[in-house]
Amino acid sequence: MTTPALSGAPCDPGIRLYVEAPLAAGQAVVLAAAQSHYLKNVMRTAAGAAVRLFNGRDGEWLATIESLGKKGAALAVTARTRRQQPEPDLWLCFAPIKKARIDFVAQKACEMGVSALQPVMTRHTQVTRVNTERLRANAIEAAEQCARLSVPDVFPPRKLDDLVAGWPAGRHILLLDETQTGIPIVDTLRRRGNARGRPWAVFVGPEGGYAPEELDLLRRLPNVTPVGLGGRLLRADTAAIAALACWQAVLGDWTAPTNP
Amino acid sequence: MTTPALSGAPCDPGIRLYVEAPLAAGQAVVLAAAQSHYLKNVMRTAAGAAVRLFNGRDGEWLATIESLGKKGAALAVTARTRRQQPEPDLWLCFAPIKKARIDFVAQKACEMGVSALQPVMTRHTQVTRVNTERLRANAIEAAEQCARLSVPDVFPPRKLDDLVAGWPAGRHILLLDETQTGIPIVDTLRRRGNARGRPWAVFVGPEGGYAPEELDLLRRLPNVTPVGLGGRLLRADTAAIAALACWQAVLGDWTAPTNP
Repeated sequence: MTTPALSGAPCDPGIRLYVEAPLAAGQAVVLAAAQSHYLKNVMRTAAGAAVRLFNGRDGEWLATIESLGKKGAALAVTARTRRQQPEPDLWLCFAPIKKARIDFVAQKACEMGVSALQPVMTRHTQVTRVNTERLRANAIEAAEQCARLSVPDVFPPRKLDDLVAGWPAGRHILLLDETQTGIPIVDTLRRRGNARGRPWAVFVGPEGGYAPEELDLLRRLPNVTPVGLGGRLLRADTAAIAALACWQAVLGDWTAPTNP
Repeated sequence: MTTPALSGAPCDPGIRLYVEAPLAAGQAVVLAAAQSHYLKNVMRTAAGAAVRLFNGRDGEWLATIESLGKKGAALAVTARTRRQQPEPDLWLCFAPIKKARIDFVAQKACEMGVSALQPVMTRHTQVTRVNTERLRANAIEAAEQCARLSVPDVFPPRKLDDLVAGWPAGRHILLLDETQTGIPIVDTLRRRGNARGRPWAVFVGPEGGYAPEELDLLRRLPNVTPVGLGGRLLRADTAAIAALACWQAVLGDWTAPTNP
């Protein structure tokens, strides 16, 4: 909920807040202490000011602040500014990394339009605990700032074996395969044009890469597309953004803007 | 020069150091205090250990540490491990942002294979001073860790007007144009296939975007390719990585691995 520092902003998004309440004209929305504090003390707003709200279901709405206190705030929803629109069904399955970098992955993945974050424990994963609440908070803040109409889900961490064993039929996988740096990502994704609009997941390995038996396991799944990202060694966070960018540009919504 | 935390590593890069000295079999290389300290106290190496060196000209070489002290270190170059290879001539022209994020841009741009970093002062740029030494240090560290054979140049900051006025003939521009989010980056770059192998620059605007007259100025240059990155608002650092990824995947060296 900090002040956005955006590039490429087609317009100033102003103050946007994610809420869980239903949004409709005339609806009253109550904010808890944290969001009220943010409006009052961080953004220096006061009763009478207008903010925008979204909940992932009802589009984006203008709302007027009616009261603003230590314990919470009351808002009145006035007019819809954007309709809810379909977004790609794109998971990011990533091996958790250390604190600052995992925050970063959650923020960037949200900007890049993922629908869910799935932490995956692998043989070479050195992090043993994942703070999913913190991931979720980062994703919400990024969604508020990047003008999304939804917030990515944050799934509980899964072991790779378990995740693969229960992999949902029909969900395609873009596998960053560090052993096959020569498989070009864009050309390969273009050949998957018939999987446009289907559920997808991008798999990014841990520091040190997947173990050979893990790569075998992943490669044997149906609908897996292994790709490389050239010959330089990319950090896990860089690789995730790069792969998501190529996916959005070839199969996602970067070919048809989602904003009105 | 910190311990790398890499994903997608085809092999452990071990300790790699950028040096300015010529590299050839039998050559002696002297390291200054900072690199000696790094080898001794951070990486806990000792005389007799092998490290890899590169200088951007002579490929990558194994070298044996002969002595290691507070004031410096002496190494003997033994055998070449990789030949120098051509790399894309790709500048990143970006509006400087605040400290932590500008470090990040330098690191990520290096991983993404840019040949030069050009800070650009625009109407909406809020940062007034750029520490180019610090940018350079970040780029060197990233080059050491990502297994590059070169380090990006860091050019002194330029005003956008001046940069455009002296723009080198023949250098193509990929312009992230926040006002035209509907121009698809991959399809557009694919239509520039005849500019593969030519010098390029990616332009990323400041927080708040380019001023309208700045966009006009850029759009009027020859060989400019404006593109959008979808309808979400991307931070400048995210947009830079995403655009560089698409460029590398369509016109750069992600279609032909640079590693042996």
